[in-house]
Amino acid sequence: MEISENRLIGLIRKFAGKSNTIVRGIGDDGAVAGLPEGQYVFVQDAMVEHVHFEFSFMDPRHLGKKALYSNISDTLAMGARPLFFLVTMGIPEKLSSGDVLKIYRGMDMVAREFGAVLIGGDTTATKGDFFIDISVIGKMVSKRYFGRDKARTGHLIAVTGRLGEAAYGLRLLKERAPRKGAGSFIRRFLSPRPPYELWKELVKNDITDAMMDISDGLIIDLSRMMEESKKQACIHWEDVPMPRTLRRDGLESLALAGGEDYQLLFTFPRGKLDAVSSMVQKGFKITVIGEVVSGKGVRLLRNGSEVEAPGRGYDHFKGAR
Amino acid sequence: MEISENRLIGLIRKFAGKSNTIVRGIGDDGAVAGLPEGQYVFVQDAMVEHVHFEFSFMDPRHLGKKALYSNISDTLAMGARPLFFLVTMGIPEKLSSGDVLKIYRGMDMVAREFGAVLIGGDTTATKGDFFIDISVIGKMVSKRYFGRDKARTGHLIAVTGRLGEAAYGLRLLKERAPRKGAGSFIRRFLSPRPPYELWKELVKNDITDAMMDISDGLIIDLSRMMEESKKQACIHWEDVPMPRTLRRDGLESLALAGGEDYQLLFTFPRGKLDAVSSMVQKGFKITVIGEVVSGKGVRLLRNGSEVEAPGRGYDHFKGAR
Repeated sequence: MEISENRLIGLIRKFAGKSNTIVRGIGDDGAVAGLPEGQYVFVQDAMVEHVHFEFSFMDPRHLGKKALYSNISDTLAMGARPLFFLVTMGIPEKLSSGDVLKIYRGMDMVAREFGAVLIGGDTTATKGDFFIDISVIGKMVSKRYFGRDKARTGHLIAVTGRLGEAAYGLRLLKERAPRKGAGSFIRRFLSPRPPYELWKELVKNDITDAMMDISDGLIIDLSRMMEESKKQACIHWEDVPMPRTLRRDGLESLALAGGEDYQLLFTFPRGKLDAVSSMVQKGFKITVIGEVVSGKGVRLLRNGSEVEAPGRGYDHFKGAR
Repeated sequence: MEISENRLIGLIRKFAGKSNTIVRGIGDDGAVAGLPEGQYVFVQDAMVEHVHFEFSFMDPRHLGKKALYSNISDTLAMGARPLFFLVTMGIPEKLSSGDVLKIYRGMDMVAREFGAVLIGGDTTATKGDFFIDISVIGKMVSKRYFGRDKARTGHLIAVTGRLGEAAYGLRLLKERAPRKGAGSFIRRFLSPRPPYELWKELVKNDITDAMMDISDGLIIDLSRMMEESKKQACIHWEDVPMPRTLRRDGLESLALAGGEDYQLLFTFPRGKLDAVSSMVQKGFKITVIGEVVSGKGVRLLRNGSEVEAPGRGYDHFKGAR
């Protein structure tokens, strides 16, 4: 950084949004907001250089977008709409203030899509790698929170969109060989927008009980939901939605364990199947992949026979398993 | 880290507090809390290895205490009582899970003192240096928020405690030569508890308008308050409270620019001077050091003559100035 902390904060302050509920925004020890009675969701998630991304394949603007998208994804997955967010950045010497402001610009683009407002945070130097840590405060809009602990026996398990796109996009990015049709996969990796319109429809129709976002991989995330709910998931290999090219090239494991798609994973009672079908007919991309049964863990069936899940997703301390 | 992320989260979950307002705590995409109507304060502040501290002179438990104290200090400085906090940690390979849990244990000790409850956050590996980033959600208990923008002409400027203790403590720690009486200064550096009882009394008696905590140094923090309030501070060198040993050894600059004391800096109208005096008589350590006038910046007077302020505090991007 070639400028002082005070000067940087002055520049960042331009990205602070306005909202009637914000009594005091950036520029003090903390932000003040007036909140009406209700339930609120609190989310906090970080991205670290060399662990979650490399600057060599992620430019600052996309980094800002992805960091905020992933936090908003968590907020939606609880049943809440994002209201405010705070950003802490650890900034190594090699980053210019221009890079830092591009990160804020990326976040600002995302914030506007969702009506979220930047109200504070911290900027600090680091002698090590870059990191960004975002916290989001959301207002509950669903009737009940969508918990990982709410999967019930007999309920159906569904996912949004297609899985494996982000992991395949990362692979294409690393290959650095331009390939026809690569763009949409790379975009999913760089800029994983949560399916907001679909989510609003799910909330409006009161469809889901348990929900989480798929950040580390379908199998590991689903197994976390089952652990919290003390249930077993039985899912069908054939039904997992993924780009045709993954099945053709034998890369189905990217859809099952790839991670970073930020699609939504949720359960719903069979009584809501008509409502889900009518959403699908309206063009919303929802696929039922299995059901909740008694037991524990995730059972993966291929043509009716149980098969071992390919990879257990990603552990940030251990790398891929 | 010798254990998996899932296992670590399982261990951390034991530190999650209970509260009637928490609908869903650690274990999901986010935490859910039911909040009554009112104003809330949002604070987020990080500590980074090699920038804010070294493990060579700060053990994990003190690191946890200090990281949470500094965030609670910001919360109090806005006029709010801390309710919840979320913690993100970037954990390098060299740290054991035992070290990480000691950091949580330190935070837990502080959380209990203030009735704050851990509700979430993120743990991630880092290839670089350790970092911890904490966000605090507080409930406003003062009549109005204590803003840096609320200093008014004619109001008096006061500080709590003695300044320069933490900076002197750090110097003694680095010397590594045991010295008589060093303990209290080192404790102030390692474990800077905000003056909570004094703060509660200030709130109860509705004394202060503008408040901030002194984290980077009296002169730089006071100049930030004046900048936000568009006023000038006129303070007296002789009146700045500091340990006798600093004046004796010519180390007054540590009190003016040392930082990390986490004492409170606040302004109040002259009409409240009796209330402040009666607090002082009850044993609360408050010292009036000057007054707010029209103009800008900070004027430092020594025996009635203006002198240059020794050092402008600490800029994390530039180091000491």
